[in-house]
Amino acid sequence: MAILQSPKGTRDFYPAEQAFRRYIHNAWERVSIRHGFEEVDGPVFETLDLYKVKSGDGIVSELFHFEDRGERELALRPEFTPTLARMVAAKANALPRPVKWFTIPTLCRAEKPQRGRLREFDQWNVDFLGSDSPMADAEVIFCAVDLLKELGLTSDEVKVRLSHREAVRTILSHLGVHAESMDGAFNLLDAKSKMRDEDFKLKAAALGLSPEASERFAALCAQPFAIGEEDALRTAAGIETELPELKGLGAALKDFGLAGWCVYDLSIVRGLAYYTGTVFELHVASGKERALGGGGRYDKLVEMFGGPSVPAVGFGMGDVVLGNLLTDLKKLPERLAPAADVFVLASSDLGATQLAPVVAQLRSAGLHARMSYKTTRNVGKVLPDAQKCGAKFAVILGDEAGVAQVKTLVTGEQKSVDILDLVRTIKGA
Amino acid sequence: MAILQSPKGTRDFYPAEQAFRRYIHNAWERVSIRHGFEEVDGPVFETLDLYKVKSGDGIVSELFHFEDRGERELALRPEFTPTLARMVAAKANALPRPVKWFTIPTLCRAEKPQRGRLREFDQWNVDFLGSDSPMADAEVIFCAVDLLKELGLTSDEVKVRLSHREAVRTILSHLGVHAESMDGAFNLLDAKSKMRDEDFKLKAAALGLSPEASERFAALCAQPFAIGEEDALRTAAGIETELPELKGLGAALKDFGLAGWCVYDLSIVRGLAYYTGTVFELHVASGKERALGGGGRYDKLVEMFGGPSVPAVGFGMGDVVLGNLLTDLKKLPERLAPAADVFVLASSDLGATQLAPVVAQLRSAGLHARMSYKTTRNVGKVLPDAQKCGAKFAVILGDEAGVAQVKTLVTGEQKSVDILDLVRTIKGA
Repeated sequence: MAILQSPKGTRDFYPAEQAFRRYIHNAWERVSIRHGFEEVDGPVFETLDLYKVKSGDGIVSELFHFEDRGERELALRPEFTPTLARMVAAKANALPRPVKWFTIPTLCRAEKPQRGRLREFDQWNVDFLGSDSPMADAEVIFCAVDLLKELGLTSDEVKVRLSHREAVRTILSHLGVHAESMDGAFNLLDAKSKMRDEDFKLKAAALGLSPEASERFAALCAQPFAIGEEDALRTAAGIETELPELKGLGAALKDFGLAGWCVYDLSIVRGLAYYTGTVFELHVASGKERALGGGGRYDKLVEMFGGPSVPAVGFGMGDVVLGNLLTDLKKLPERLAPAADVFVLASSDLGATQLAPVVAQLRSAGLHARMSYKTTRNVGKVLPDAQKCGAKFAVILGDEAGVAQVKTLVTGEQKSVDILDLVRTIKGA
Repeated sequence: MAILQSPKGTRDFYPAEQAFRRYIHNAWERVSIRHGFEEVDGPVFETLDLYKVKSGDGIVSELFHFEDRGERELALRPEFTPTLARMVAAKANALPRPVKWFTIPTLCRAEKPQRGRLREFDQWNVDFLGSDSPMADAEVIFCAVDLLKELGLTSDEVKVRLSHREAVRTILSHLGVHAESMDGAFNLLDAKSKMRDEDFKLKAAALGLSPEASERFAALCAQPFAIGEEDALRTAAGIETELPELKGLGAALKDFGLAGWCVYDLSIVRGLAYYTGTVFELHVASGKERALGGGGRYDKLVEMFGGPSVPAVGFGMGDVVLGNLLTDLKKLPERLAPAADVFVLASSDLGATQLAPVVAQLRSAGLHARMSYKTTRNVGKVLPDAQKCGAKFAVILGDEAGVAQVKTLVTGEQKSVDILDLVRTIKGA
């Protein structure tokens, strides 16, 4: 028969690809943990209804969905947030606050695969629930930034582009947008990057902006402001009113030492579905790729899923764009796979009879021990395999019963060791 | 709205449950790596056809399957082996031999949930391809046994029950089963534990066994034999012929020091679908639970998926039965969640302004730093939170600018430390 193919938009992770994936996952996990987030997870599939709560019926065509023997409609998870909201809603009063959770689910979306966008991908999610303080926003952003640093990225290479729903609302209101047109104005802002200038201005006029206000707003959205420049931003917007949300956020970001990583960018919207305050995206400075990730404050979401009112802020970061970036910028360590501690080989047939017992002894002691499966007894032909798996030592079993040669591979130094002392010798080295 | 439920047979992993799951996953991963297996993974869903190759059309009702916008039929993976076979088949000649792979996929089956059996579970898979030596069988079994040891289980608590397809074939043949009835005899053996004795004998007679041979065979299946007792087994079977497969397997198991963990049990069959040689299951000694895992040799599988002929042996172990066992036998460490290095709190409002910068400094240095989100400045009320997250140290920020109190939580010992020296103090302790 012909070899079957994997479904399009999915990936096969052979050892090299999986080591790369693990490298990212391990960094996500390590950084989350040191920032005090606790890992959670939910089912790979949920009821289809769960995804309609936040996104309406329109979401269905973007999901892989199926029936549970005709009983219930189920769907592969396209995002983790509905599961998070369901889990928090179900136990809201029993959970110690704040709730600081992270998760690394595999997500599936029935969309057309393209660069940076697959039908199956991994996404790191970090959420902080139970605090409406800008300190929580900043702490979550700190976790995202620390991940970038952990992977060797710098603030010259990636920037956190921030906005705040309430600050933008204040500005738009001053520029002439009435409350009833506010949603339309946010939608227009969200679509701005994909529109021609004249179309933007036409639509802005329809929302109540004068040509001058529209011009001013477009200019404002095109200009990044540094953290600490909240007043300059306000002046550029032509308004007198303070923007307390930006001031609070800016101060919290400074407290966590994040000013150099962040800029205000009022063109960041992230749709209208559920964000209520701070919104942000991580963008490569060159600006060519999709966002590395993004998030914001979503104070109404848990309530939307039947739980109590719980303020919340969080973000998601996928593995595909991040992986492309690390590759393009050559930020990967030389060796991604776990290096062996020791490689065992035989230089004689007698030695070969000792391979299994020696390997068993080393592994039972917790050492990562590889062995040669080759039938040759020519050490020179086997040693490259030891190098290849990153082993520090080669243990060579020859004709002398009960004794092995331990070779330090970097230096080439070699000494005789009693087989019973191998674990101690290698662990002590 | 009412809070939506998770689909039946699935699990929500809150931090405590996820820490337990991670504990098992980490042990699987650590043991696999030190035994020289490399991690791989494949898609969460595959084409439905892939699952029909090995299991026929009958498998479809056990799968969650769906359509890719009407183009192709897809299914959530119920097992990893077809993906493994597909991946090996696709690159068989490019892969360095032997292929030693492990994976920890989440699998989904559309079956009725019951104790030890859910609709969604994790399964550790370990496979060794490219060697037909019993040493490969033994190495794979060693990896399974080392996992049990890693989790604190002993050979009194869990046993590897082994059989060998070829040895059983030789015995059955000597007992009067003709080649054309051999599949029927294996099926009967597989079903034996669920049958009444008289039904077994009736069916055995139909396959060519005399009442005496049937009796002898039933007795043989009911009696475990130790590794090294291959001749006693042969004598009990009433045959003169050597059983070289068992002899080879037994010698290899001894080489890896596994004799005490293993017994021959000829009632182990594991279906007829694809095993060709050694078959084994891990059973709790009390014998009450389902098997913890099982596997065997499957030399024809890669060919069945369109690849070249590649000998192979492997096993799978699920998380559900294992998790139940560890809980029942109280084999879990007291703390499953990662312990914090340090917990930061403020004993004054001035100190509180330093919380974020100090936490940022500690986390940026790689320390797992938690902080208090409480508004109280009463240290005694906050310290229990530090204990709870397993922190070794509490850093108390008070009224003295630039200075913190570092408290060793186990001893209660406390000293003043310059804030700029906190990382060095805590890392050096």
